[in-house]
Amino acid sequence: MTNLKAKALKMHKDNQGKLAVEAKVKVENSEDLSLAYSPGVAEPCLKIEENKDEAYTYTMKGNMVGVVTNGTAVLGLGAIGADAALPVMEGKAVLFKNFANVDAFPICLDTTDGDKIIETVTLMAPTFGGINLEDIKAPECFIIEQALKEKLDIPVFHDDQHGTAIVTLAGLVNALKLVDKSFNEIKVVINGAGAAGIAIVKLLNSFGVKDMILCDSKGAIYSGRQEGMNQTKKDVLAYTNQDNQQGALADVIKDTDVFIGVSLKDLLSHEMVRSMRKDPIIFAMANPDPEIKPALAKEAGARVIGTGRSDYPNQVNNVLAFPGIFKGALSVRASDINEEMKVAAVHAIANIIKPNELTDDYVIPDPFDARVAERVSQAVAQAAVDSGVSRIKGPVVHDN
Amino acid sequence: MTNLKAKALKMHKDNQGKLAVEAKVKVENSEDLSLAYSPGVAEPCLKIEENKDEAYTYTMKGNMVGVVTNGTAVLGLGAIGADAALPVMEGKAVLFKNFANVDAFPICLDTTDGDKIIETVTLMAPTFGGINLEDIKAPECFIIEQALKEKLDIPVFHDDQHGTAIVTLAGLVNALKLVDKSFNEIKVVINGAGAAGIAIVKLLNSFGVKDMILCDSKGAIYSGRQEGMNQTKKDVLAYTNQDNQQGALADVIKDTDVFIGVSLKDLLSHEMVRSMRKDPIIFAMANPDPEIKPALAKEAGARVIGTGRSDYPNQVNNVLAFPGIFKGALSVRASDINEEMKVAAVHAIANIIKPNELTDDYVIPDPFDARVAERVSQAVAQAAVDSGVSRIKGPVVHDN
Repeated sequence: MTNLKAKALKMHKDNQGKLAVEAKVKVENSEDLSLAYSPGVAEPCLKIEENKDEAYTYTMKGNMVGVVTNGTAVLGLGAIGADAALPVMEGKAVLFKNFANVDAFPICLDTTDGDKIIETVTLMAPTFGGINLEDIKAPECFIIEQALKEKLDIPVFHDDQHGTAIVTLAGLVNALKLVDKSFNEIKVVINGAGAAGIAIVKLLNSFGVKDMILCDSKGAIYSGRQEGMNQTKKDVLAYTNQDNQQGALADVIKDTDVFIGVSLKDLLSHEMVRSMRKDPIIFAMANPDPEIKPALAKEAGARVIGTGRSDYPNQVNNVLAFPGIFKGALSVRASDINEEMKVAAVHAIANIIKPNELTDDYVIPDPFDARVAERVSQAVAQAAVDSGVSRIKGPVVHDN
Repeated sequence: MTNLKAKALKMHKDNQGKLAVEAKVKVENSEDLSLAYSPGVAEPCLKIEENKDEAYTYTMKGNMVGVVTNGTAVLGLGAIGADAALPVMEGKAVLFKNFANVDAFPICLDTTDGDKIIETVTLMAPTFGGINLEDIKAPECFIIEQALKEKLDIPVFHDDQHGTAIVTLAGLVNALKLVDKSFNEIKVVINGAGAAGIAIVKLLNSFGVKDMILCDSKGAIYSGRQEGMNQTKKDVLAYTNQDNQQGALADVIKDTDVFIGVSLKDLLSHEMVRSMRKDPIIFAMANPDPEIKPALAKEAGARVIGTGRSDYPNQVNNVLAFPGIFKGALSVRASDINEEMKVAAVHAIANIIKPNELTDDYVIPDPFDARVAERVSQAVAQAAVDSGVSRIKGPVVHDN
């Protein structure tokens, strides 16, 4: 066992996990008890019975996110199940707390039935101000997220999709400044049609990219393809591959400006990078090993390269996005995290790096840059208000 | 609005509820992140995938109770719904934390369908080491608890039933010492056939009471009664009302030793108390006003009187039971809270008061007696081990 593995096990065991519950009020005598519990607690209950939105005022709901998984696509481990997914969900909750002081609680659901997940989350929604879906495999994750967004009046956000997409787009916004290209003129190839790949394609579309091709393990996704298709892959053809190109990644990557990989290690070759246009931009985010090693990509002519790893420059780390996004959404009691809020988050992350600070190796802020969550939160809150999905017109500030 | 009501509202608003999440580990740099999250977190995941019980070692599960309600019988407020029940559930979680350092988290389910509650709790069980059902109306609460006890391998405990029963029995154990009577010779009348009343009858049976009658608003429950019956009421006839007495409370209370009320205020008259045997013992637990005022009961000859209120002696407060019971069950990773564990809790609470300290006004410990939770926990843990429902043979001690 490596040192890291042994240390991680010991840390989890010594602390009996990573999450606890904290009482915000003391109960040390009869008066405390009569305020926090019976009979005083009846008052906030009655306020909420009269108007459900009062739960934001009198309960934990307004700062509480449910981190929901069924354990079918956990990290690179795959379908390890609901019980085994709990350490990851606790970790996610720790990041929510640490990076944005948002309370989050893991809910691990022991089922692979998407309909049951939809029903369960719907039933338990009163406790939460938002739902973060996590590590649920594609394509079920798309159906579950969409159904819950329609049913619930709180934000539902599948981080494996949108978190990755938002941070990647922030990197791309800055990379394009460096190479002086614009979204509406670039050609992009995205490799990997799972949760992250699909969300990246959708967000690129929101940013005005006209020319892009999504590939999976069978190559370009095109209209009329029979093998390995699903509804989601069909849906994105509305705004990808307008020339209906066919072929392997090696074929369709030719003459593109940007490669975005959420696929498998060492899949992007020296030759493929060389076949791209001038100043190739590469986001190679396969975990733990990227689609191409940064050194090899540079050697082949890549201008900017980002990966998912902390030991290379330009780390695409979701922690730059989800804490601030939920904080912002909660602060205005938003009913949704919509496209406008995601776009606002992209710009807030990108703008952390001033134009004169931008370099090929610094297009994405450091995950521990303390400015990020607050800036993202403010931008997202404003976008929620502007797009009409907030319950109130400005952020609620809490001292907790 | 009274001062208490205004203070309670302000306290809930100022703190935005009463519960937060606490991270037990810091994430301040890349190494922290690699231990608490990817890639280090994969190690505890893999341990749990191999053996589910390892979740007790590496996650929060072993100290985490789900406080589950559907808001159909909240305090004296009735069916106020899942959203409005949240302040009470947060309060319950605060008590778990404050009295026994047990982490507890509210789950408010927006449904009145018992089958959906059973399914939802079953699906979300991986997160929790125990389930505390709360404020779910009778008779659904009996069916839900029974089904979950059978389905889950973690303890399920409906506090409105068993918490009240356990504390009442503790008071009765001590009261009987004062009047020198034993469980197998007394006659008891229990008024109220809801969650608490039924559980009290069952626990009295476990303590060897042979002669008891359960009443509801229609009087004694007897074999052959047609009006207002349900399965649970029928079931308890196996060990209540062996003489098949009929009549109103005023009739059947004659010549009894003990009255236990979980019903309505001012329902027990001076005359009824006078019709009881020598040294009547009265537990009048209607909320907020008891079945008889203590002064009136004393005037009528009652020897010992307990109520649910903090401003009278002998307060029957569930907080004496549930925190220590769950702490004990969790400490040995119990799969159930069984009858043996409940009986152990009764004795542990009763024995807090030494024989030479017992008085008519002191048969139940003070809710803030700091010794109670630990003593209950130890007794319950031992009973779990002895009765074969523990995963380990001794309590696990955690410093949190």
